Amino acid sequence: MANAVLTISSKNYSSWSLRGWLLCKLAGLDVTEERVPIDAPGQRAELLLLSPSVLVPRLTHDDVSVWDTLAIAEYLNECFPEAGLYPADAKVRAHCRSISGEIHSGFHNLRSALPMNLKARNDSFRLFAGAKPDIDRIQAIWRECLSAYGGPWLFGDKPTVADAMFAPVATRFQTYAIPLDAQSRAYSATVLGWDFVKAWTAAAIAEPEEMEELDAEF
Amino acid sequence: MANAVLTISSKNYSSWSLRGWLLCKLAGLDVTEERVPIDAPGQRAELLLLSPSVLVPRLTHDDVSVWDTLAIAEYLNECFPEAGLYPADAKVRAHCRSISGEIHSGFHNLRSALPMNLKARNDSFRLFAGAKPDIDRIQAIWRECLSAYGGPWLFGDKPTVADAMFAPVATRFQTYAIPLDAQSRAYSATVLGWDFVKAWTAAAIAEPEEMEELDAEF
Repeated sequence: MANAVLTISSKNYSSWSLRGWLLCKLAGLDVTEERVPIDAPGQRAELLLLSPSVLVPRLTHDDVSVWDTLAIAEYLNECFPEAGLYPADAKVRAHCRSISGEIHSGFHNLRSALPMNLKARNDSFRLFAGAKPDIDRIQAIWRECLSAYGGPWLFGDKPTVADAMFAPVATRFQTYAIPLDAQSRAYSATVLGWDFVKAWTAAAIAEPEEMEELDAEF
Repeated sequence: MANAVLTISSKNYSSWSLRGWLLCKLAGLDVTEERVPIDAPGQRAELLLLSPSVLVPRLTHDDVSVWDTLAIAEYLNECFPEAGLYPADAKVRAHCRSISGEIHSGFHNLRSALPMNLKARNDSFRLFAGAKPDIDRIQAIWRECLSAYGGPWLFGDKPTVADAMFAPVATRFQTYAIPLDAQSRAYSATVLGWDFVKAWTAAAIAEPEEMEELDAEF
């Protein structure tokens, strides 16, 4: 059996780690989790969620090392085609990759204003106005998919790469009590009820707190 | 023959448009270029290069619409496997996707401090200190590839998706006269001498100037 290690960081704060981990779960790949310490070089920027660092997530699978979230998705899709990480129809697959690419490269205001923090609940969050277009665009993406493919997942009756990519966003909407349209609320509930997301969240809540000084920045 | 339209914006300023266009060229796909006006919604942010907008680049190929740069790369790779957009070896392909993903989602300081501007030359540019780690990381990525695969392109003797992704960076290093190590200098020269990059640059220089007020922001 192949040796597979997934390098991640904080389960509470690292949205990229969550995405990479969900992709491995979707692929059915059993991984050993390896956690980089919070003070590793590059970790701070990653934990501030401004960009994925080169450190996490990183999948080492036998002699292959792959360290960007979408690159991990494509790699797993090649290794485990039967897992259906992407939709089977070419046109729908292009849609799935398009929105996965959007969340991968964009939404900087959302990332910096609403950092993932699975332990926190902030019901009186004052939303930075610059994040509003990001939140609107995300709901538009979700509505378009849910209407076109019937839900409850973005591309129909089972989760794909896109759901792994947007999962941290659903947790942010919950953490900061962001008002959502009905379809987006239902989709968020689907994501938050996903067994894998629940297991990750439970582990995040059990994590020792190391991040007070970062929290203070938000 | 399939109908293919590539929606782009300014050839001078839009690094994402350049990447999408290079990918079509690599795939051998003849596209009709469609240009969105500079005041289209979302265009301003895209032109400030802080993030790709949903508008550009967008490829419409028969009934398929795909609008993120990496999604376009994967779509073209599926349609034109013989074009070799990605390296043939699975391990090397994972490397190619990893660094393509890095430039897709990261390097925000580089983007905002050194926006692509093919018409400009600034030999006395005062580099924002925050962009220095980005510049160092890019050179490290390039050196690792050039040493591992022998150059002159990142993955050997022909350009791949990664070269399309990093091409705008080589133009920025030229525009802002960034000092580079010897390997990175040689690679930049390869990119700047690429027929497709030269053709795009010539078209950018011939573009009417519409962006004075944006220039003033940098």
